[in-house]
Amino acid sequence: MVHETVTMQGHLIDSDILRRAFARIVEEGGDFDIQEFRVGKTNDDPSFIRLTVAAAQTDALDRILEHLSYLGGATSAADAAFAPAERDGIVPDEFYATSNFETDVRIDGRWVPVVDQKMDCALVLREQGPTCVKQGRVVKGERVALRGPGLRVRPPERSRDFSVFGFMSNDVSAEVNKGIVIAGAAGEMRKTREAGEKIVVVAGPAIVHSGGDAALARLVRAGWVDVLLTGNAFAVHDLEKAILKTSLGVCQMSGRAVEGGSRNHLWAINAVNRAGGVRAAVESGLVNGGVMYELVRKNVPFVLAGSIRDDGPLKDVLTDTLVAQKAYAESLRGAGVCLMLASALHSIAVGNLLPARVRTVCVDMTESVPVKLSNRGSMQAIGVVTDVGFFLERLERELLVV
Amino acid sequence: MVHETVTMQGHLIDSDILRRAFARIVEEGGDFDIQEFRVGKTNDDPSFIRLTVAAAQTDALDRILEHLSYLGGATSAADAAFAPAERDGIVPDEFYATSNFETDVRIDGRWVPVVDQKMDCALVLREQGPTCVKQGRVVKGERVALRGPGLRVRPPERSRDFSVFGFMSNDVSAEVNKGIVIAGAAGEMRKTREAGEKIVVVAGPAIVHSGGDAALARLVRAGWVDVLLTGNAFAVHDLEKAILKTSLGVCQMSGRAVEGGSRNHLWAINAVNRAGGVRAAVESGLVNGGVMYELVRKNVPFVLAGSIRDDGPLKDVLTDTLVAQKAYAESLRGAGVCLMLASALHSIAVGNLLPARVRTVCVDMTESVPVKLSNRGSMQAIGVVTDVGFFLERLERELLVV
Amino acid sequence: MVHETVTMQGHLIDSDILRRAFARIVEEGGDFDIQEFRVGKTNDDPSFIRLTVAAAQTDALDRILEHLSYLGGATSAADAAFAPAERDGIVPDEFYATSNFETDVRIDGRWVPVVDQKMDCALVLREQGPTCVKQGRVVKGERVALRGPGLRVRPPERSRDFSVFGFMSNDVSAEVNKGIVIAGAAGEMRKTREAGEKIVVVAGPAIVHSGGDAALARLVRAGWVDVLLTGNAFAVHDLEKAILKTSLGVCQMSGRAVEGGSRNHLWAINAVNRAGGVRAAVESGLVNGGVMYELVRKNVPFVLAGSIRDDGPLKDVLTDTLVAQKAYAESLRGAGVCLMLASALHSIAVGNLLPARVRTVCVDMTESVPVKLSNRGSMQAIGVVTDVGFFLERLERELLVV
Amino acid sequence: MVHETVTMQGHLIDSDILRRAFARIVEEGGDFDIQEFRVGKTNDDPSFIRLTVAAAQTDALDRILEHLSYLGGATSAADAAFAPAERDGIVPDEFYATSNFETDVRIDGRWVPVVDQKMDCALVLREQGPTCVKQGRVVKGERVALRGPGLRVRPPERSRDFSVFGFMSNDVSAEVNKGIVIAGAAGEMRKTREAGEKIVVVAGPAIVHSGGDAALARLVRAGWVDVLLTGNAFAVHDLEKAILKTSLGVCQMSGRAVEGGSRNHLWAINAVNRAGGVRAAVESGLVNGGVMYELVRKNVPFVLAGSIRDDGPLKDVLTDTLVAQKAYAESLRGAGVCLMLASALHSIAVGNLLPARVRTVCVDMTESVPVKLSNRGSMQAIGVVTDVGFFLERLERELLVV
Repeated sequence: MVHETVTMQGHLIDSDILRRAFARIVEEGGDFDIQEFRVGKTNDDPSFIRLTVAAAQTDALDRILEHLSYLGGATSAADAAFAPAERDGIVPDEFYATSNFETDVRIDGRWVPVVDQKMDCALVLREQGPTCVKQGRVVKGERVALRGPGLRVRPPERSRDFSVFGFMSNDVSAEVNKGIVIAGAAGEMRKTREAGEKIVVVAGPAIVHSGGDAALARLVRAGWVDVLLTGNAFAVHDLEKAILKTSLGVCQMSGRAVEGGSRNHLWAINAVNRAGGVRAAVESGLVNGGVMYELVRKNVPFVLAGSIRDDGPLKDVLTDTLVAQKAYAESLRGAGVCLMLASALHSIAVGNLLPARVRTVCVDMTESVPVKLSNRGSMQAIGVVTDVGFFLERLERELLVV
Repeated sequence: MVHETVTMQGHLIDSDILRRAFARIVEEGGDFDIQEFRVGKTNDDPSFIRLTVAAAQTDALDRILEHLSYLGGATSAADAAFAPAERDGIVPDEFYATSNFETDVRIDGRWVPVVDQKMDCALVLREQGPTCVKQGRVVKGERVALRGPGLRVRPPERSRDFSVFGFMSNDVSAEVNKGIVIAGAAGEMRKTREAGEKIVVVAGPAIVHSGGDAALARLVRAGWVDVLLTGNAFAVHDLEKAILKTSLGVCQMSGRAVEGGSRNHLWAINAVNRAGGVRAAVESGLVNGGVMYELVRKNVPFVLAGSIRDDGPLKDVLTDTLVAQKAYAESLRGAGVCLMLASALHSIAVGNLLPARVRTVCVDMTESVPVKLSNRGSMQAIGVVTDVGFFLERLERELLVV
Repeated sequence: MVHETVTMQGHLIDSDILRRAFARIVEEGGDFDIQEFRVGKTNDDPSFIRLTVAAAQTDALDRILEHLSYLGGATSAADAAFAPAERDGIVPDEFYATSNFETDVRIDGRWVPVVDQKMDCALVLREQGPTCVKQGRVVKGERVALRGPGLRVRPPERSRDFSVFGFMSNDVSAEVNKGIVIAGAAGEMRKTREAGEKIVVVAGPAIVHSGGDAALARLVRAGWVDVLLTGNAFAVHDLEKAILKTSLGVCQMSGRAVEGGSRNHLWAINAVNRAGGVRAAVESGLVNGGVMYELVRKNVPFVLAGSIRDDGPLKDVLTDTLVAQKAYAESLRGAGVCLMLASALHSIAVGNLLPARVRTVCVDMTESVPVKLSNRGSMQAIGVVTDVGFFLERLERELLVV
Repeated sequence: MVHETVTMQGHLIDSDILRRAFARIVEEGGDFDIQEFRVGKTNDDPSFIRLTVAAAQTDALDRILEHLSYLGGATSAADAAFAPAERDGIVPDEFYATSNFETDVRIDGRWVPVVDQKMDCALVLREQGPTCVKQGRVVKGERVALRGPGLRVRPPERSRDFSVFGFMSNDVSAEVNKGIVIAGAAGEMRKTREAGEKIVVVAGPAIVHSGGDAALARLVRAGWVDVLLTGNAFAVHDLEKAILKTSLGVCQMSGRAVEGGSRNHLWAINAVNRAGGVRAAVESGLVNGGVMYELVRKNVPFVLAGSIRDDGPLKDVLTDTLVAQKAYAESLRGAGVCLMLASALHSIAVGNLLPARVRTVCVDMTESVPVKLSNRGSMQAIGVVTDVGFFLERLERELLVV
């Protein structure tokens, strides 16, 4: 048997950290012995635990310690180790893979917070400090943090306020009064505004199909959207509706495709591209309403990421997925709230790029998108299983009418 | 090879009858030869077809002819045959099984329309005429129609108006603007009102969870509901909310059960039963709001059908399922529109009892309930995949505000 | 501010009890101060906590204490209080509502375990001890336990084995290798067999539609089913297939209803009822295969609960839902494993009647049934989102072939 | 009122063409008068109709005629008109938008079939004939077909064989015996093989999660896959499993993410990229099993399309979505059968690129992907709602064992 002593600190119980730590130990065939446990006496006190973890073999123990480190478990006070990237895009095999929880790196005896925290990155020592960098963007010779000591994760603490983003996160059933959840989301948007953080909207084409585009356009006009992340399809549906007043080549009453109906879709792309892109199409008067129009008028930035499904695409689309990923990541800096509206692809892409502290609401007609987000590590996202059109209309009433 | 000549008349193409007829023939290994086909020249003209159906063996041909008869296919002009029920609840093996399409029976050379049309019944000669009777209710010695000649089905014709209940029925996608469908449903409710037919609401407990109960109560008060068919659970949730103002033992913000939370549920049943039932509880002042309260005050009839899942149950519940089925069937007489709101069990039960001509809207969070209804033969039902709370609020605005 | 001291003991962390206790206190606006906390040093040691709970008002404190009591929180050592039922089916307003966790009642200073533990019952002092009784079955004058002191709940401890029924319960995603989960379920069935406990199967008609009936029939024949709980529909589908070899009035290739197709369904009911019921139909040779046939041949008891959706029904059906509920409850005595197969109605009914210690697997094509079970308090049930036909074939291979 | 005479020919009834034609006329507010209708006397005879369509205004009539043309309606015998593309990627506003039905263009009095038929393209006169070209790839000056006369669509005729790909297509319920559908798909794969056409597989990562990867690898080895179209995620999951034998950073028993678990995912990308890509990783011995390994060994081509969600990505990934779309389109030439396995993004992308005559099966855990495909015009796709792991195991048994 081999052992190691681990300490953890924080809201160990109500943030569900201790239970998950014990689960990982047992799952890997290990054992534990608690040396010291002090539970916070009141709501605001952190708890502290020191425990000895044991396993039959060194590699099992290492796996356990690695899991625990992602839950905030600390083993020793050594500095982090680094090794150079051997080539562009190739990291040392012992690289540390980041999570979306805030992380500190011990360098010369000091704990330095990580820049651009996001999941599934390498941790590279750059000028501005240790930085989360997608592995494909690591440059030959850059110093890459290795797994092991000197890395400390701070799992997000659930707010002890009883709120949508507090105890309830990730537990919202489809059978709930959505009005209450939407009111909670509106409250968070107001707080985010006051804190000077960004409100990010991720948008899918079902917003237009469901008739929620009018409410979203008014929210943009009223200044409730700071960045819009989407793809070609949402933008084209919105532009087609603005230019041609048509039903998107889809029967309004059934939502099903009509023979030959996508001609208008292609026509709108053609017209906007001929004008020189979305901004030019607005400025030329070709487009005079809708979400894209309001974004241009309010100078709200938007990023259109390309996908293999696209028609056209619009000139504004970033067709290279790595370029689009980088543009999304930059747009997300400073985000405080993120609304993911009816787009599986872009929601999961954004989930990959967001630190866990951003309050995230994922709206979709089925539980599968919120469940996927959670399975992939975006555990902070609250799923709201409902019609995105009704969601936006209600959100608008919460923010604009009251 | 054996053959038979069949004629059909009606909106054979746009009601999708001819395609289904051909499909059945091919599916059973048969063949057909069209003798005469006159298509209606205009929107309002019926079409007519006479075709010879062939099959290798008599029993295959019989099966084909039987399928076609359910689509309105007529083979000969003989009278229907009848045989007596041998015992209570036991019909002759050759009994004719009804569909939910309007049917005529040829008796003494005259075509007599069937009374109480509904699917999966025996056709019994009673005083008021040939009547659809659930097999368990057939009485020894009653004359039961046999399959074969003398039975003529009139499949419902799709309205050539382009409306929610016209061409579009049963084809509504989850990605559609629900506002348009709800406006269409409201329009049908107005027409039903003018025609002096009943508006039936089938209600599930998710109405209360989703916060749609307030809108439904106002619709009852405004006279938009003529019958409410539901079970114990919906009534108890509504009564608990009225009496105890509690969140139904379910966390308002998450929709999940709270430890010990169903005590209030049981308490409400106890209190209402002690008072002597729902009406007495309203009259005594114990209950002073909610859907059940408005029903009692407006003298709108309701039926509470028992289920094996029930707590309590309330005194008003019909615990015998055959008694409840009969009470539902009687309440449905004269129905023009049926709203099925978030209740799989009761919606399918009502689908079994409704003639196909009743315009039916089925609202649920997933497509599975509308799909089940359609698979079981309630093909007239339009599925609206959305949050029932939002549906009711929007319907209220359509009916009461405008 | 008012306070109370509460103690709790058990696997407070890994059974997720402490987190839920803290959540309830905060949710109700309360506060807590931890006096003593001893965490179990090893896997097998229980933990212990003593904390002071405070709230602004007495009724908020009472609500918190009541929630905590359902998580095992104990406040004082007084005996339980009882009061007589005022009428048949009417309990005192202060009655204690049971959970599905094992419970002890303090009577004359001794803790007495509850008989027939199940959720949402009154606790009645009967000859065999304090017994869970559905409120509708309480008899006038029987002594009913009141909420408050003298009631102690023992929440189930998650097994520290890493197994399907251990840490993982209630957390299974749709994107998992179902083979592993099914192997785990088979393992539990073997253990249950060895422990002399019952294996209960709850069955829905989709078993027949999906072609899983053959595997289920072989499992019955091989002795892997001790009780089958279902309704009229499953039995009729199975019997129709056995007698008429037909496709259940449903197109084999599409699963959709065929015009006039339910005649065979009704015919089968008629024939079995004429024979005198299911057992007689098997013994007379009318039925010579299928699940019902194997049940009769092996003398495995089955209960057919009536529902308002039923055709027929079969003579064997208990049409009164209270009678059916009682029959289900009695059949569940001694259950060790429960498989819920593609039946929302009966699965939730059984969930209401099962103590939480019974290992339960709920198989359905969508997450909605397992989620409903969990929301309604059957938190022990593991959801397996898959095709029930494939589930049964794989289970058979695990149990019979290997 | 303005009118026009339209003729249509083919299996107008059983391919559901006439019903849809009438629906479009009514939906656009038009009217029709049937001049001549000859229905095919037998199974193999085509039908013929000549009808006059009327509308109140020219533009409504034009819309109706355009819809009808997509259903095969012909109005006159003039040649098609062409106009040059004004710039790269900019087509004339009056361009004709293609469907996925086979189309002929009238040039110099001759009907010439279209090359590379797919939906939502421009029709460009290139050397090999009139060719479907995505609008973004049209080159300045190329002659682009305009809407109006000289374009004739041949809607696919439903096979009058009663088979999975015959009458049943697009109508398959979740409650069906999947074994029958899978046997039908296997039969089509055999026929495709004999016809010398390609079997295309579109693959999503859930194949690996569900354990279906082993069966898919064996199908590749046995020569049942001619092209594999997927993205980065599927390939990496498969390679990680081959190299590290790990559970993909996901708990095997729950399918949920494990803290720090995606490190192995990133490690596998790093190792394969260091080796020089997938082929090099197989040849170097780093990868010695799994689906990608079998593809390389059998020289079966695969295309990995980039997406904004990707980690890494692998060197083999085409990160530009337009390049990837082109590579997919080229791989699909000569396809006879297409299996879409648990990947919404890539399935819809492929649906956009496939002619409607390719027999397509779409396997997913929910109905939403097949429904989306159908709504977007891939009406030929049969949805099979089931676990992809079980699907592949059963398909393997149909193809390899029997």
